[in-house]
Parts: sequence; C-alpha cells; structure tokens
Amino acid sequence: MRIHICNPNTTASMTTKIAAAARAIASTGVEIIATQPEMGPASIEGYYDEAFAVPGLLQNIRAAEAEGALAHIIACFDDTGLDAARCLATSPVLGIGEAGFHAASFIAGKFSVVTTLGRSIPIIEHNLGRYGLASRCAKVRAAEVPVLALEQKNSGACLRISDEIELAKSEDRAEAIVLGCAGMADLAAELAQKHGLPVIDGVAAAVAFAESLVRLGLHTAKLGGYASPRAKPYTGLFAGFAP
Amino acid sequence: MRIHICNPNTTASMTTKIAAAARAIASTGVEIIATQPEMGPASIEGYYDEAFAVPGLLQNIRAAEAEGALAHIIACFDDTGLDAARCLATSPVLGIGEAGFHAASFIAGKFSVVTTLGRSIPIIEHNLGRYGLASRCAKVRAAEVPVLALEQKNSGACLRISDEIELAKSEDRAEAIVLGCAGMADLAAELAQKHGLPVIDGVAAAVAFAESLVRLGLHTAKLGGYASPRAKPYTGLFAGFAP
Amino acid sequence: MRIHICNPNTTASMTTKIAAAARAIASTGVEIIATQPEMGPASIEGYYDEAFAVPGLLQNIRAAEAEGALAHIIACFDDTGLDAARCLATSPVLGIGEAGFHAASFIAGKFSVVTTLGRSIPIIEHNLGRYGLASRCAKVRAAEVPVLALEQKNSGACLRISDEIELAKSEDRAEAIVLGCAGMADLAAELAQKHGLPVIDGVAAAVAFAESLVRLGLHTAKLGGYASPRAKPYTGLFAGFAP
Amino acid sequence: MRIHICNPNTTASMTTKIAAAARAIASTGVEIIATQPEMGPASIEGYYDEAFAVPGLLQNIRAAEAEGALAHIIACFDDTGLDAARCLATSPVLGIGEAGFHAASFIAGKFSVVTTLGRSIPIIEHNLGRYGLASRCAKVRAAEVPVLALEQKNSGACLRISDEIELAKSEDRAEAIVLGCAGMADLAAELAQKHGLPVIDGVAAAVAFAESLVRLGLHTAKLGGYASPRAKPYTGLFAGFAP
Amino acid sequence: MRIHICNPNTTASMTTKIAAAARAIASTGVEIIATQPEMGPASIEGYYDEAFAVPGLLQNIRAAEAEGALAHIIACFDDTGLDAARCLATSPVLGIGEAGFHAASFIAGKFSVVTTLGRSIPIIEHNLGRYGLASRCAKVRAAEVPVLALEQKNSGACLRISDEIELAKSEDRAEAIVLGCAGMADLAAELAQKHGLPVIDGVAAAVAFAESLVRLGLHTAKLGGYASPRAKPYTGLFAGFAP
Amino acid sequence: MRIHICNPNTTASMTTKIAAAARAIASTGVEIIATQPEMGPASIEGYYDEAFAVPGLLQNIRAAEAEGALAHIIACFDDTGLDAARCLATSPVLGIGEAGFHAASFIAGKFSVVTTLGRSIPIIEHNLGRYGLASRCAKVRAAEVPVLALEQKNSGACLRISDEIELAKSEDRAEAIVLGCAGMADLAAELAQKHGLPVIDGVAAAVAFAESLVRLGLHTAKLGGYASPRAKPYTGLFAGFAP
Repeated sequence: MRIHICNPNTTASMTTKIAAAARAIASTGVEIIATQPEMGPASIEGYYDEAFAVPGLLQNIRAAEAEGALAHIIACFDDTGLDAARCLATSPVLGIGEAGFHAASFIAGKFSVVTTLGRSIPIIEHNLGRYGLASRCAKVRAAEVPVLALEQKNSGACLRISDEIELAKSEDRAEAIVLGCAGMADLAAELAQKHGLPVIDGVAAAVAFAESLVRLGLHTAKLGGYASPRAKPYTGLFAGFAP
Repeated sequence: MRIHICNPNTTASMTTKIAAAARAIASTGVEIIATQPEMGPASIEGYYDEAFAVPGLLQNIRAAEAEGALAHIIACFDDTGLDAARCLATSPVLGIGEAGFHAASFIAGKFSVVTTLGRSIPIIEHNLGRYGLASRCAKVRAAEVPVLALEQKNSGACLRISDEIELAKSEDRAEAIVLGCAGMADLAAELAQKHGLPVIDGVAAAVAFAESLVRLGLHTAKLGGYASPRAKPYTGLFAGFAP
Repeated sequence: MRIHICNPNTTASMTTKIAAAARAIASTGVEIIATQPEMGPASIEGYYDEAFAVPGLLQNIRAAEAEGALAHIIACFDDTGLDAARCLATSPVLGIGEAGFHAASFIAGKFSVVTTLGRSIPIIEHNLGRYGLASRCAKVRAAEVPVLALEQKNSGACLRISDEIELAKSEDRAEAIVLGCAGMADLAAELAQKHGLPVIDGVAAAVAFAESLVRLGLHTAKLGGYASPRAKPYTGLFAGFAP
Repeated sequence: MRIHICNPNTTASMTTKIAAAARAIASTGVEIIATQPEMGPASIEGYYDEAFAVPGLLQNIRAAEAEGALAHIIACFDDTGLDAARCLATSPVLGIGEAGFHAASFIAGKFSVVTTLGRSIPIIEHNLGRYGLASRCAKVRAAEVPVLALEQKNSGACLRISDEIELAKSEDRAEAIVLGCAGMADLAAELAQKHGLPVIDGVAAAVAFAESLVRLGLHTAKLGGYASPRAKPYTGLFAGFAP
Repeated sequence: MRIHICNPNTTASMTTKIAAAARAIASTGVEIIATQPEMGPASIEGYYDEAFAVPGLLQNIRAAEAEGALAHIIACFDDTGLDAARCLATSPVLGIGEAGFHAASFIAGKFSVVTTLGRSIPIIEHNLGRYGLASRCAKVRAAEVPVLALEQKNSGACLRISDEIELAKSEDRAEAIVLGCAGMADLAAELAQKHGLPVIDGVAAAVAFAESLVRLGLHTAKLGGYASPRAKPYTGLFAGFAP
Repeated sequence: MRIHICNPNTTASMTTKIAAAARAIASTGVEIIATQPEMGPASIEGYYDEAFAVPGLLQNIRAAEAEGALAHIIACFDDTGLDAARCLATSPVLGIGEAGFHAASFIAGKFSVVTTLGRSIPIIEHNLGRYGLASRCAKVRAAEVPVLALEQKNSGACLRISDEIELAKSEDRAEAIVLGCAGMADLAAELAQKHGLPVIDGVAAAVAFAESLVRLGLHTAKLGGYASPRAKPYTGLFAGFAP
C-alpha cells in the first residue's frame, strides 16, 4: 500500500522530519512517499502563505495519484488545500489537523490545541467549525513560536509549548492535547510523558487513519462538493493544471 | 495485538456476524475477541434495552482488559455504555456508531444514517450532538426494520434500507451513507455498489480505527469525565462490580 | 396524588435527606414515596457508577408505577437513567438536574451550576446540551467535594461550594445558581441568603414541577424515543426485567 | 396565593377564556387575577402589535405587584414584554409560550408548535432561540387562522389546527404539540384525544409552573439583565411610568 | 436622499450629538432628519426603558416615512424596536448595534463590544444571537458607565472604555471593537488611534449602510415577520397608532 | 475614490458584465477598476477551480493596492481567496457572497440563496457558517446551471433560477433571495419584479458596502488572522509573490 504525504511548504528539513514520523507509524508493507511542492512558501503561517502552497500541493497529489497512491495526507496543521485535493483525488485525502482532532475525539471528551503563532488560531477555529468538532475543542492556544523555529535546536520552542499545555490542563480542563504543527511531530511522546495526558501528533494520526480508510475500501465521495472538477480552459501559468 | 469487540445484546448469531465482519478487516496479527454479555436483552431497540445491556458489557470489558485487550469496540450502533466503558478501561474504547460517523467525515462533506427503528433516531441524534458531528449528518433515517429481522433471510429488510438510501441521495444531498446497526455489517458493499456512493459499516470502521489508536500508543484520557471510578461499596446484584 | 422520588444510589442517609426536602415542598395531599435501589453504588460519581445505578432505579420506577405513582423523580443531579425511565413509565419522569435548569431559566437569564467533583462536569454539560439549555448555563463548576462528604458534618463542603458561588457571580456573570447534587438540598436557602441571588435545589424544583405535570394531565410522549420497550427475551440476572 | 395573568390584548372575550383556563388548573387556595390593558391592540399579530401591548401590560404588572400578586403570567404566546416585566417585578414572571415549551421538554424529546399566522413564526423562533430550546422544537407551524377567528364559533379554525398537528406527526416526527396562541386554550384536550399525543396549552402550563416557582420561594434574579429599572425622567404620555 | 435617524430616548443633547455624527459621514446630497420621541425615557438602560421608548419611536418612523424618508436608523445600541419598525416601514430600517456588528464583520474575524452598563450585556447578546453574528463576537464588555455620563465632560467615562478595550485585545483576542452606545459616537477615532485597532461607531456605520441599501433599491421584506400590521382596533392612549 | 473589483476567473465577458453592474451602482466620483487574473480557470465551479484562481487574484489585489485602490471586491460568489486577500491588503476586502448575505440580513429575517451548480452548495454553506450567518439562510439552492451558461442568450438559465425562487418562497419561507453567482448580476431586478420579494445581487451590494467602509475610514484588522504575511522565501513559479 502506497501512501503519499505532502508537506505543503518547501522546507526540506521539515519534509524529512515528517517522512520519518510517518514511516515510524506506518504498518509493514506500507510505502510512504513524502513530497514537497516545487513552488510556494518556505513555511505556512496564515492565509496568504496557504494560497501559494496549494497549487504545488495539488500538482503533487495528481502525480502521486497517477503513481498509485491509495491515500494522500496533507502535512500542514491548517489542512491547507484539503477540499481542493479531495476534488482531484478519488483516493481518500486527510489533513493532519483533521486527523489529530478525530484521534483526540476517540479518547477524550475535550482537547486543546497548541499551535505556533496566534495568526493561525482563526484558521484552526474555522476548520474545527467546518469539521463539526468545535464543541470538542476547549481552546486553540498559540505558543508564539514561528514554524521554522521548530527546526532549530535550542530555540526554546518546546518549553513554550509545554507552558501552554500546562495552561490547557489547568484553565481549559483539557483532557488531551493536539499539537498544532507538523513540525512538532517529534515532541509528542516527550510532552505526553511530562504532562501526564495524551498528546497527539497529527502526522502519525493521519498515517494510521489513512491506512484504515484504504483497508476499508473507502474513496472520497463524488456526489457533492468533492465532485471531480469540470473540464474547462485554464490560462497562463496554470494552463497545465486544467482538469 | 488483541482487540475486544463486544456485541452488547445476547443474540449469538449477531455476535457471529459481527465477529466475521471484524476479522475480515483486521490486520494480520490482530486477534479479534468477540463477546456478548451473559445477561441482558436479545436486541437493543431504545433506551430501556440499553440500560440492561450495559452491566454485562462492562463485565466483558473488564475481563478483556485483564486478558490484555489493547482496545475495545462496542458493537451496537447506539454506542451503548461507551462513556462508562471509557471510565473502566485504560485502553481506547470505540463505538461503532462513532467510528462510522468519523469514517464518513473523512471522505464526505455530509452523510445520512439509515438505522432500524424510528425509536432509535433520537438516540443517534443525541450521540451525534455529543460527538460534535451533528452538522455533518444530513439526516438520520429509519428503515422501520426490527434489529432481529436483519438476522432472517427474506425479511425484505435490505430493500427497505435501499429505499432510504435512495431518499438520502435525492432529498438530503447525502454524499455517503452510514449504516445504523451492527446487524447491517454484511450489506455495506452491495449497497455501495448499487447506489454509487460510499456506504459505511461501523463495525469495520471501528476495527480499523481501534488498531490505529493502539499503534499510535493512545490511551483513554483520565483527567476528566473518563477518570477511573472511585473506590466505593456496590450493593446487591452488583456487589461484584465495585471499582 | 402519589409522587415517587428515587435516590438512585444506595446511601440511606441521602435518601432520608432527599425525602425530607421533597416533603417540605410537596403540596398538601401529595404523598411522597422515597426509594433507593436494592443494588448498585453507594454514590454516583461518574459514568461508571451511573451504569450500575440504572437497573435498580428502573425496578423501583416499575414498582412505583404499578402502585399508582403519578410522577417519578430521579434524585441524582446527573439525571441518571432518565431516558430509560421515560420509556418504562407512562407517568412523567423528571430528573433533578433537568428540573433545576428549567427553574433557573424561568427566573434568570444565565445561571451557573456548582456540582461536587470535576469528573461530573462533562456529564452535566452533556445533559445541558441535550436538553437544549446549554446556552443558558454560564459555567458548570465543581467544588471538588465527594458526594458523601455532603453527608458529614464539618466536612468544609459548604464553604467550598460557597467559594464557587462567589466566583460564578464575579467571573461568569451568573444571575442564579443551580446546586449540582441531591445531597446539597439542605444548603440552598442559606446560600441564597448569603450570596444574594437565587440558589436552586433540584429536588424541590422537581417535586413542584412533577406536581404541575400531573395536574396538567400530561404523560410521557410515546411516539418517538420514549416508546414503550418492545417485548423480547432478557437473559441471566436481568431475565426478570424483560418488557 | 394570588397569581396575576394578563392577556396583553384588549379583547375581553379572550381574557374571559384565559381566566377560565387558568382557574381550571389553579390549585385550591390560589386566586387568579385576570387583567387586560386599558390601551393597545385588540389582538397581537406580529411585532408592531406587540410594541403597543407592552406599556399597558407593564401597568397591570405594576398594579398587581402592588396588590400582592406572587407571580405574573403573560398570556400571549409571543411572550410579549416578558423581559421588561421581569425588570419591573420581583415576583416571577412567565410567558405562556415559554411555559409551553418547558412543559413539552419534560415529557417529549421533540415538539412542534402550531400557531395562528405565518407572520408569528419568526417571533416564536426568536423566542425559542433565546430560551435555548430551539433544538427541542422540530418545527413552528402556522394554521393561518387570525387570532380573533379563534373567538368565533364555526370559523373552521380547529380543523386547520388539527391538520397541522397531523403534519407535525408525519413530517416533523413531533412527539408532542404546543398550541401557539392563548386563544387555543380550550382546544388542547380535544386535540390530544384526537391525535393521540400530548397537546399542551401554555396558559395552563404557565399557571402550574407559576405556582411552583412561588412555592419554591424563587424570585426574578436582579443581578443582570433583569435588574430593577434605574430612576430617571420619563416624558409625555409615559411620565407616569418612570421607575 | 432623506434619511431619518431617531434617537429613541428623550435627551436632546444626545440627539444633537447623534445628528452631528450622522451628518459627518453622510454623502453629499443626503439629508439627515434627526428626531427623538415626544414621550419615553431620558435614556435606555435595560428592557424596561426600551418598552417605553418604542411607541414614540414608531410614531417618528411613521411620520418620517410619510415625509419621504428613504431609510430609518434607530440610534440606540440595543436596536430598540427594530422589528416593530420594520413592520411599519417599507423603507429599510437599521439599528446602530446591528450596523456596527456588520461593519466589524467585514474587516475583522472577531470583535468585542464595549457598552455602558452590565445590565445591557444580555440585551446585546440576545441581539447578536438573533442576527446570527454571535460567533463573530468574542465578548460583550461593560465599562459600567451610565448612558448620560457620556454627555458629561470629565466623567472619566472615556478612560473606563479605554481600559475595557485593552482587556478586549489581551484577553478576548478581539481584532476590532464596536462601541456599544450611541453616546460614544464621538470617541471612536481617538480610541482607534490610541489602541491601534479598528474602533467602530454604530451611528456612522448605520448611516453608510442605510445609504447603501437605498442606492441598491432594497426595501424591507414583507413576506414573513415584517409583514405590514393587520388592520384592527387600538384602544385608549394608543388608539391613534392603529395600523 | 478608487475601488478595485476582481473577477477571479479568466472569462472576459463576465468581467465586462461585472464591471457594468459595479459602475451602475457606484457613487459619482467612485472609479471602478475591474480586473481578471492573467492565469487560472475560465470559471469557478468547486474547490479545485478556486485553488487556481487565488494566486492571480492576489496578484491583482497587490497591484491595485499599489495603485491606490481604497477597497477591493472579489466578484465570485464563493468569496474565493477572501481571507488571503485580507492578509495582503490594508484596505477593506469584500466578497460578493458575503456582501449579499449582509444586505439580505438588513432587510429580511430569512433569505435563501440560488446558485449555479449543486457542487457549490457546500462551499456556500461553509462560508455562511464562518461568517456566522448560517441561521439567517433558510436554504442554499442550486439551479443546476453552469456558470458560463449565464453568459449565453437563450440558455434557459433564468427560467431555472426563477423556478428555484418560487420554491424558496413556498418551501423555505424565504423572505428575500440572494443570487449566488456574479454572472447573475443582470437578473436581479427582473426576478424581484416577477416574484414580489427582494432579490439581491452581490456585486452591487459589495460596491455599496465597500464605499461605505472607505467612507467610515475602516481598514482590515491586522491583529489576528489577517496580520500581514511574514517575510519568507517563496520558491519556483511563486518566487515573485513572496511577502
């Protein structure tokens, strides 16, 4: 079973970390193909970066679909381009934010999210609202750590995240934590140990659930909003992306 | 990996069917332990039956936990006793209704549920509300087929369910269907083929997701509502169930 | 008019206190029958205890129904077994949590709840969500007092509850308080006096509203989720509970 | 115990009918004072009529409060002026719409409302939203019968209401009906009999609950939105209404 | 284009300030007619005052409609009498609270409101709920400043408001502020400058949007709740207000 | 005052129609700059097309901002790229869907939307949810007319739209209609006349509201989700779009 995981930013060290996290959880016999777009932003911090991450992500989804990927994972916690990817693919497509929220819902009544920057909070709240899981999330918190600081040793990022987890326990009555950035994938186990509650990394959750959907024989529904794109001319830089 | 699936009613033929559905999806190396309570109702059709299904279910959960089950599945679409089971177990516990709703949420914008009797609609709507997924469900429909009719050949049950699926497509704009009874586990593939949209069996979904949670190393959160029961006297018939 | 109030735990001192609170509010000519189950937990603190309180509660409901009770009250603030009891009874059945919320809604815009343990908060929040009254509740607070500590003199329980009421006024803008445990029935008047806002005891509210429903000639609706249980075999310990 | 019920329109025959319905349910020893405003509209059909019903209603509330009324009932299903009346009174104030919704919530999972004219549907939906009970109401239906047609024999009004009840059962899965006009108070018993489900008259419900609140010793909360009006000049026609 | 703005209280200095704020934003060629009722309260602080502000307001709306006003603005942040005015007028009618909320929604994800007294918070929350915009409002805050204190120099009111804005930024993550009283119209620019975020005055917003609706050729919808009042007798003081 | 309106698809005839509709409503002295992207899809029908419309749209927003545009309008009813555009611009940015919903909210209790294809319904429902206005929308309907059919004479499109408006009146109790495509801008007046209720074109509404926001001196809030993009490398095709 081939599963495609796309880091929608162009930072290779982050793709490497994500691929490692994905392979660590993947079942025997599951091949993880990790990609990043050829074009777009070095990190995704807000709606503007998202807009330029999506075309390259879709290019990678299309290529991976052609090469037999049975599921796709979007490895940005904002679930950048998830709906567009579902229109393009017949295989299931999961976002790591979405996967993290669902995992938390299976094991806890309420969870809090700890993400990077405050500007990402509204995006995550929008997603929670759309997925229907807003009532399960006690609070979306920001550690005020830029995404790429997570790639640097000694940035103090982990400590800031840890502080927010402590607040989530005491102030939000959170029963579990969802880490709000793909770049935090390597911190989950240590933070769970330290704080004594489940700490969920969306990358691992997405891989496990993607395998599940493949085994269940489920495909993306094509009757409504995820119908395949209608044939039509695309112009200029995007001529090659026409459905 | 040992996974315990409990049919919370006492009808053995249904346990057999559920066990078969579970084993069909389980990964190599996963052992499925299928149980049913020693006491309680022959089928669960409404809140009253639920009340008498739960003690036996919990007995089985406790026994399976002791025997090393790494996850538990409650194989009634009402997710009977799910919260109590989560208090008792440290392993993850999933309901098949819950699992079906989450699976549908990963592949479709909106889904409809087709269950057995109209009296079960409020229970399912309550669960959707609690899980937070009510906004993802277009409608809960009843085929008005008793649970045990699903165990009889030629009961016409499948045709009634098929009719409701057709209405869900045309009237609800449902993009996927979740079958609303463990006894429908064997119908999903045929109905998906017939109606041209994803049809989800909660038993299979629960097995796949349960494996996922085990591999992710997640346990039931113990900080809030699912805290382990406090030690205290239990009296009479239930003396042996004291925490 | 005979009204049955069932304390669903097995602690006799609590039944006595509840009966006294009920008789204190009951109209002349109303006979209060106070019961407790023969089997089950000594107190209800979380979902697990609930599961073992319900069968005995239903036994008592059935017996009281047969003896002409015109209404039933479930005297646990979690409204344990309320839906199952409504399936069984044709008389109205009220939970004391539910009654307290409705009473508060008639006299205040927003109320806060002060319950015993934090583990009960999710249960109460679930109930508020189901009843539709979540938007009327500013916050569910826990005094972190075990249920049976309310039965002991000098446990400091009342002071802890009083502290939470003060926070509810200042932080939640609560206009009224609903006491979140049957064992607090004797504290309402004193706390209302001390804090200068309405403090509602669910036991008294439930008795008054139960009388009201009887006088209005209303019965539990039998068309949907509260339909009478269907006849079917019950097995083992529960054989005698078959509908 | 003196309870004041105010029909906020100026049609005396309707006040008479309301008084009769109130006295029919009132406990022995409860004195029902039925009033109507000296000024305002002959019936309340929409927001404009409401605006001119409220000053006279408040005048009557103030007078009744001075004469020792221990509770007040606003006998228009739109609950006209309810919030203003609660500011004025220290006794509890109930609307008959509100009382009907709460009564239905105690005995049924979902109810539908059958009111007079379509123009009243948004008002009732607003009220349900504010009270928090919108999720309990399957649908607000209009029989398209003017309020004063209910005062005429042979107007066909009852038949139109009956038709809507039938639709509420089949299309809304309503388990109970709340009659949406004070002028329907005399129809509840007959319609319940005919349709085989609880049919609730808000006038009777309000009287029973008002007595309950009085016996519970509850007053309108004065800490938030229902604080007593601040002293200030009132001008012109309304000089005499200054707080 | 003639636009009518009605200050629904009887304080002339406030009408003058509102008129000035309205004229400052009005387009060339727009005539602002500013009125206040002949009868009613000197300020609107809670539901009771509202009830006595509405009849005079409606009188002014009717007169202005007859004199060719193409839109009406209700210049009290509680949007006093908005629904009744919409029944009466065929021209659009806007409340300044409503206009402020919509303006904030166009430029910010979340806003907070800073109003005068705590007793007005529930009214504003009710309005937000009805308009559908509750999810856009982070918090409704009160500076605990009486309305007429805003008319006095050196009352310290502006400082109290400023303090709440600072809290809205730090505690609510508010991205914009809506000032919650017509009497604050002259403070918006200074506070926006001081706090570095958009601060919205509902009077100005309402004038701009009222002009917009006129230019768009839109009238108040007459098919549902805003249908023109039905002809019927009005009695006593209000005989002259009969539709 | 210069206002920029961007048709985010590449069909010039549609840009021409949109520009005409915008200029027809613009105030004297307002200059409308109408643009379309150099790259992207010929029409936007679903999430996939959206993804490729946004980069070109943002390019145009940036250029127009540099040329002194005081507001921007996104002339696709899906409000494609609205959040990203708000990050980029300091001037206000409005979507025509958003503008249409707000206009309808000022004049009607409930509105229905009539859009082109069923696949756009989920997008519009998502937007309504995020804006907070879902409760004001009775139903989102699709006429099942492709976007570019609106550019052809005799396509029967107007008749299909008209049929849906009739259903919205009778089945949804809609009091106003919002037309769900920029390509319907020329139909609003005729349909309003024919059906006797307000019919709103989002293009006109957006122009009027954009002028309003400029006159009010309001800018896009920069404290939360709409903060200006952080400086960082952009790669490949998108190198020139780096913030």
